[in-house]
Amino acid sequence: MQYLPPAMERLTEQFKKLPGIGAKSAQRLAFHVLSLSREDAAAFAQSILDAKDKVHTCPVCQNLTEGDGPCALCSSYKRDRSIICVVAEPKDVIAMERGGEYDGLYHVLHGVISPMNRVGPDDLKIRPLLDRVAQGGIEEVIMATNPDTEGEATAMYLTRLLKPFEVKITRLAYGIPVGSHLEYADNATLMRALEGRQEIN
Amino acid sequence: MQYLPPAMERLTEQFKKLPGIGAKSAQRLAFHVLSLSREDAAAFAQSILDAKDKVHTCPVCQNLTEGDGPCALCSSYKRDRSIICVVAEPKDVIAMERGGEYDGLYHVLHGVISPMNRVGPDDLKIRPLLDRVAQGGIEEVIMATNPDTEGEATAMYLTRLLKPFEVKITRLAYGIPVGSHLEYADNATLMRALEGRQEIN
Repeated sequence: MQYLPPAMERLTEQFKKLPGIGAKSAQRLAFHVLSLSREDAAAFAQSILDAKDKVHTCPVCQNLTEGDGPCALCSSYKRDRSIICVVAEPKDVIAMERGGEYDGLYHVLHGVISPMNRVGPDDLKIRPLLDRVAQGGIEEVIMATNPDTEGEATAMYLTRLLKPFEVKITRLAYGIPVGSHLEYADNATLMRALEGRQEIN
Repeated sequence: MQYLPPAMERLTEQFKKLPGIGAKSAQRLAFHVLSLSREDAAAFAQSILDAKDKVHTCPVCQNLTEGDGPCALCSSYKRDRSIICVVAEPKDVIAMERGGEYDGLYHVLHGVISPMNRVGPDDLKIRPLLDRVAQGGIEEVIMATNPDTEGEATAMYLTRLLKPFEVKITRLAYGIPVGSHLEYADNATLMRALEGRQEIN
């Protein structure tokens, strides 16, 4: 990667740091930036700074938000304020909202308990969740962490902490993904789908 | 993509404009930027502006460079100043240099003639190439545009323009890529490899 001007080298290096971007892609992206107008490049640079400077977490649900006070979801009068769906990351809120079915509130943990990665309960936004439930008015807490070991362990841990508050605690159903085939389902999923079988009316 | 703060939406949109970055990747990259330190994000933003502001084309070979005067390659005393390798894009210089074999100079056209994309000869850096050859001292011009229709047409066009200067004009050899298999080579490549067959000494 010699014979590129230093500024291009630096930009290529910056792109290479991004997840999923290799050396070839990074170079292509750097050349693309060079082909932008000065205004478009400035807008790109500014959007990076803005994301860092303006975005913070909602004081209630810990999801990402801009501006003061609770986020749009937490302050919406259209949402059922008696249900909290607990997810690991802000992108999981987006996934749930994409479904369009859920109309309750959220709580974003910003991670899962993971001894391997040295993430303990104190590194997650668990305290604010307990505070919300302790304040009363919550009837159900849905655990919607990912169905892997760490997500499961986190859900179990939270369930134990939430038990004293006598709220209903539920878990997203396991099963065969819609549109997939039985023959391609792994055994664990198939067994869970069998356990969770439902009566057809 | 609702329920993301506007600054995150804007950053995601910016990433989505990059070549080869889809909606999912763009979102992942935006979340990655959010996880950077303020300093790292600022360095990323600055590198975008630097690439736009500092990088320009070498007055001699038209390759990308920083600073005043001819680029490092054009001013290197180690290079053979009697040969010019004509390529379409700056990245082709990098590809040639990676080989490590070529020690002459370059000329970057910044495109190829392409009536489909409305790129004519006047949109390319052809005039500076003719000026360089006209100045004398050049013995050979190697056409190293891509071996596709547009690259070929551009090479043929330049060959016609350079004929009056009585320099040797050559073309990179076509053939089977090293390490590949005959059975996977397309017919056109195979025919070119046959035409260009060389005696084994």
